[in-house]
Amino acid sequence: MDLYFLGTGAGMPSKQRNVTSIALSYVDERGGFWLFDCGEATQHRIMHSPLRLSKLEKLFVTHLHGDHIYGIPGLLASRSYHGGETPLAIYGPKGIKHWIEITLKLSQSRLNYPLEIVEIEEGIVLEDDHFSVETARLEHRVDSYGYRVKEKEKPGRLLIEKLRNLGIPSGPLYGKLKQGLDVDLEDGRKLAAGEFLGLSTPGRTVAILGDTRVCEASLKLAENADVLVHESTFASKLHDLAFKYHHSTAKDAAMTAKKAAVQTLIMTHISSRYQGEEEEELLNEAKSIFPNTFLARDFWSYAVPSKKAKQNK
Amino acid sequence: MDLYFLGTGAGMPSKQRNVTSIALSYVDERGGFWLFDCGEATQHRIMHSPLRLSKLEKLFVTHLHGDHIYGIPGLLASRSYHGGETPLAIYGPKGIKHWIEITLKLSQSRLNYPLEIVEIEEGIVLEDDHFSVETARLEHRVDSYGYRVKEKEKPGRLLIEKLRNLGIPSGPLYGKLKQGLDVDLEDGRKLAAGEFLGLSTPGRTVAILGDTRVCEASLKLAENADVLVHESTFASKLHDLAFKYHHSTAKDAAMTAKKAAVQTLIMTHISSRYQGEEEEELLNEAKSIFPNTFLARDFWSYAVPSKKAKQNK
Repeated sequence: MDLYFLGTGAGMPSKQRNVTSIALSYVDERGGFWLFDCGEATQHRIMHSPLRLSKLEKLFVTHLHGDHIYGIPGLLASRSYHGGETPLAIYGPKGIKHWIEITLKLSQSRLNYPLEIVEIEEGIVLEDDHFSVETARLEHRVDSYGYRVKEKEKPGRLLIEKLRNLGIPSGPLYGKLKQGLDVDLEDGRKLAAGEFLGLSTPGRTVAILGDTRVCEASLKLAENADVLVHESTFASKLHDLAFKYHHSTAKDAAMTAKKAAVQTLIMTHISSRYQGEEEEELLNEAKSIFPNTFLARDFWSYAVPSKKAKQNK
Repeated sequence: MDLYFLGTGAGMPSKQRNVTSIALSYVDERGGFWLFDCGEATQHRIMHSPLRLSKLEKLFVTHLHGDHIYGIPGLLASRSYHGGETPLAIYGPKGIKHWIEITLKLSQSRLNYPLEIVEIEEGIVLEDDHFSVETARLEHRVDSYGYRVKEKEKPGRLLIEKLRNLGIPSGPLYGKLKQGLDVDLEDGRKLAAGEFLGLSTPGRTVAILGDTRVCEASLKLAENADVLVHESTFASKLHDLAFKYHHSTAKDAAMTAKKAAVQTLIMTHISSRYQGEEEEELLNEAKSIFPNTFLARDFWSYAVPSKKAKQNK
């Protein structure tokens, strides 16, 4: 599970930072990746990254400001050109579906894959065998959402050797044990699933928030997360400006990380006014409150550490 | 009058070529520039060019395919961020106005300058003291236009010294002579304007065509032009493919340049299948028919030569 930062700037592109897009890849699990937001030229960034556009499976949009969505139509068209044939799903606020549809229609773009566009509300927006994704509304000038991605626990492998040594032949009961269910044998023996399963690996949690002021929803989405990706448009000297435009300062992000008891904070969505040493000030400001903080840069990646394996029963 | 190529690729961006956008700057005349088409990430290209986004005055759109328009919304928003306050006019096919308006509305983008969007038909779309711009419909899968930009003749300067030597005091008659009108003096003398004007400089003509098959409209727009900018998506080996997709080969472009008797041909909109030596093949193919041909590359510029000054009367 790697976070790959394609664009880490605010409002408009600069030479240092493109507008927002963050990839979450899960190479080990399924060979694909997800995107969070898609500012203009995100597809260009992908072209210069290890990611392959045809492998994009899902795009989560936090809000409809241009610096978070203007790259969508071009990315969708190029995914076809690059041989993408598998389904793609887009999740985003109300209004996203109509805009994407009329944009593709106007430009007569034909996609070679099924496209599903889901307009979200608060709650669970996606759940499959590997992940659940929950969303909540933050505090911004327009509807802005945060996403809490929760990886499911990977159960330990079935200890087949041990079962065979006890003379238990393979069959449906192996499946039950694998699912963590205890089994009664016909000869009266009881098999406790925990004794026949290896160590399980707890899932990781990553919270990626859209543009926002400090708010309760951020805390809820970030609670005990392994990683919180939080906007830090300004330094706290410009707190009043941040508040006026419904944005956060580096200090705000760090306070949220601390209160939510996350493991790691990554700051992104940095105003282009901060360059060189001033960037360091943003980072130091946050670190003085929450030491385990990183400042994202374009093309920087962060591998979310695996959890320690544990015995379930 | 300089042509500056911001994007010279076809269909989708590649590492070598971005999608289409061409700037026409006229630094000497007005300090501003025009754009022809605006594929995604055109604003990023401008950021790395000598052009200043706030100085963009007009955008001419050839057709509504994504690789020619998806950069418009971001460019409009960033022009505000970059301090653009002067009016901007966009000319393009029917449908462009609604799309730009709903895109800006969806993303709640507020522009700090007046934006005029003109949906074009064939004929003169713009005429001012310095230029006229004429358009005609080409042959493509969707309505695709070409633009013929005609610079007006710069009249010679009024030879004030010569008038003073003849004892003719300044007054409204100076203005008449400057406009090339002969003047009768009250004392019976006749002043022929031509004798009191320096050399005039004929205007240049640049034809920039959208995606097209070979067609009559191209010839009309390009007739005797100083420069013809023509798409060359394929080499002539792929003529059937070019025809099927309503595109041109390098040979098609060269034949049009020759028939229209232009001075210079610039090929652009090159398929990403042509790299390195294969690019040279495209160029050689065209040069064998029309020797004065260039193959555009991203960030390449071409200064349209000034015409030889001449005495008008």
